Amino acid sequence: MLWSKDFIPTLKEIPQEAESLSHQLMLRAGLVRMLIAGVYSYLPLGLKVLNNIQKIIREEMNSSGASELLLPALQPQELWIKSGRDKDIGDVMIKFVDRKGRNVCLGPTHEEVITDLVKNHIASYKQLPLVLYQIQTKFRDEIRPRFGLIRACEFIMKDAYSFDAHEHGLDKNYKAMSNAYKRIFRRCGLKILITEADPGVMGGNVSHEFMAPTQDGEDVVLLCPKCKSAKPFKETNDQSCPKCNVRLEKINTIELGHIFKLGTKYSSVLGANFIDAKGQQKPIIMGCYGIGVSRLVSAIIAQNHDKEGIVWPKEISPYQVIILPLDTTDKKIMDKARQVHKELGQGGIEVLFDDRDERAGVKFKDADLLGISLQIIIGRESLKKNALELKIRRNQKKIIKTKSAILEEIKRFVNG
Amino acid sequence: MLWSKDFIPTLKEIPQEAESLSHQLMLRAGLVRMLIAGVYSYLPLGLKVLNNIQKIIREEMNSSGASELLLPALQPQELWIKSGRDKDIGDVMIKFVDRKGRNVCLGPTHEEVITDLVKNHIASYKQLPLVLYQIQTKFRDEIRPRFGLIRACEFIMKDAYSFDAHEHGLDKNYKAMSNAYKRIFRRCGLKILITEADPGVMGGNVSHEFMAPTQDGEDVVLLCPKCKSAKPFKETNDQSCPKCNVRLEKINTIELGHIFKLGTKYSSVLGANFIDAKGQQKPIIMGCYGIGVSRLVSAIIAQNHDKEGIVWPKEISPYQVIILPLDTTDKKIMDKARQVHKELGQGGIEVLFDDRDERAGVKFKDADLLGISLQIIIGRESLKKNALELKIRRNQKKIIKTKSAILEEIKRFVNG
Repeated sequence: MLWSKDFIPTLKEIPQEAESLSHQLMLRAGLVRMLIAGVYSYLPLGLKVLNNIQKIIREEMNSSGASELLLPALQPQELWIKSGRDKDIGDVMIKFVDRKGRNVCLGPTHEEVITDLVKNHIASYKQLPLVLYQIQTKFRDEIRPRFGLIRACEFIMKDAYSFDAHEHGLDKNYKAMSNAYKRIFRRCGLKILITEADPGVMGGNVSHEFMAPTQDGEDVVLLCPKCKSAKPFKETNDQSCPKCNVRLEKINTIELGHIFKLGTKYSSVLGANFIDAKGQQKPIIMGCYGIGVSRLVSAIIAQNHDKEGIVWPKEISPYQVIILPLDTTDKKIMDKARQVHKELGQGGIEVLFDDRDERAGVKFKDADLLGISLQIIIGRESLKKNALELKIRRNQKKIIKTKSAILEEIKRFVNG
Repeated sequence: MLWSKDFIPTLKEIPQEAESLSHQLMLRAGLVRMLIAGVYSYLPLGLKVLNNIQKIIREEMNSSGASELLLPALQPQELWIKSGRDKDIGDVMIKFVDRKGRNVCLGPTHEEVITDLVKNHIASYKQLPLVLYQIQTKFRDEIRPRFGLIRACEFIMKDAYSFDAHEHGLDKNYKAMSNAYKRIFRRCGLKILITEADPGVMGGNVSHEFMAPTQDGEDVVLLCPKCKSAKPFKETNDQSCPKCNVRLEKINTIELGHIFKLGTKYSSVLGANFIDAKGQQKPIIMGCYGIGVSRLVSAIIAQNHDKEGIVWPKEISPYQVIILPLDTTDKKIMDKARQVHKELGQGGIEVLFDDRDERAGVKFKDADLLGISLQIIIGRESLKKNALELKIRRNQKKIIKTKSAILEEIKRFVNG
């Protein structure tokens, strides 16, 4: 992709609206723009990052035996009255009466809708277990949207739901999802803490949260410096580790995911039953498993940056390589740059080509800010030596070698 | 994918809610389910079809030089008041006041939002032309939602926007988009008519509609049986072809896409200006280009079915192959079926494995209803001959050959 054909509005200054470092970097690198408080447009680079995260999630969910579907944002309020959650959720749910007189809401989550869907098509234990998931846009009427994508009014979630005939089936699916989550966050370059949490409005009695430690987070977790066990901070918490008897540390974190053993909370009130092997009717045993997809962008930046800008983990980088021809008026430089661009493209490598008529200093600064994993710098110096310069963004290491050797380095990096 | 692990609730009976043949088939094949009138869940097979359509659209948009982003559904009503369209759009737009007291709406389209976004970052003719697009969920408060995905309250659109410094730049982008649309619809297996249309509430003075002729459509087009030119039906139309002087035929169609030369309608009122080569400030010249992504599912089915069920075009088929082991209690049959499943998977071919304990008749009927391009039928008969049976769904042709010959046939079909 040519930078001149794309829409990557980088900013030199720190925008006033930015409330945290990840928020600043997201705006400065041209990933997102605010439309109104809590509501963001994903610009081309931001969307690419989002797609890379979603690709990892899909691969790990599919390989765990889950099947993807897509549920609507519009939901009948009636289902929320049936489950009794309309009151628990309160004003954070956006509700309206449509022209047909229907009481509609914008779903902040989909337990009711999926239970209602499954109940019409699952009749027997033979059709269980079943795990369904979606990646979908949710809406919340946040009174105080904050930190860019972290607490937003419109955001993208992955929500999965498991349906089982037995408790041990739920245990197995819960474990499989927990393991999938660990793989997802590792591939996204995220260090996490797992805490046993309060299921709250979701219901059920077991739940775990996946938290990313970072200054930018607003969720406080108590961590034992010795055994590394973690739990959510509450004012009433006894502040020492019961196992190690040492003082717990307060850590700021971003909540990335939350998984719940729901049991029969939804199936029993919504009538989602199955006939077991002995011919008895029973409510389906459920679990639900969420990941805040769009806030992952914030968390990844919060944990992967340096003072120059973002340092994307390999699988998340919006492009794998950025090519920086240092003088666009120099035919030799541009010819070499185009040739490298073409060869990388043929090798299936995604490349951003900075064809802007800008000074070398501007290009260097923007490339570091954007955080694309590899930079190929093409200037008079290296051309004279018949060589290319490769810079690895993460460690700022520079390699000067022949073109074919540099292309080999890139292939190794991408596939390694 | 194993059928038993997936969620494909096929129906033997025609559901009462179905208003058209494509709607019937969509429900019977387990592609979608209605939540409330005009609001649908995409089940796993339906989502796969949707994804295949989106993949084609992305490929053709990207190769036309467009760059993808993602705009929010929530929009400030203020932008619609500025453009003067709040009154034109009327009650079909869903509006509400949020807890912060903001007047928010769910965008039925994004001309205002993208013009506002681009205006903050485009200053010079050097940054033009620019073409941006998104694939995104839209909301309309339809008073009479109909025909499943054709007239829905929540639906998926592809909307693209071009930004140019000159009229001839707009002409060029308009032509490129029109050509991309022809390629998209051809790859989706859709026959189309192109009509010169009334820009209506969008504005501008040139627009074209891409219509799919089918009984299921509610848009009437007048077609000249001789020169094949088409125009939208209006009560006041002179009903004969001005060129051929023959009576025009009334044809039912589904509107698939609509492209508009907007000119400066939005840029001038929202202040999206640029400085031209002579240093003069001018409003950016715009075009917009829509495709009704989710209704394409309906249109494709309407044009691609027979009396047994859906016949998916090759690039749209949710899986490329369905394997039908005719007796799941027969170890030899199941071993062979699993072996074929594995080998196809290793070859990168997407396979649905019908592992349900159902009679052969049920599996045949469901496979034809689902419309997956190729069926591999594994029963005692063919095993005795040490052969596999391949059925091509489109022409119901059966081929009985050795396993390796059948796998070759499949490869040829998929890559051909």
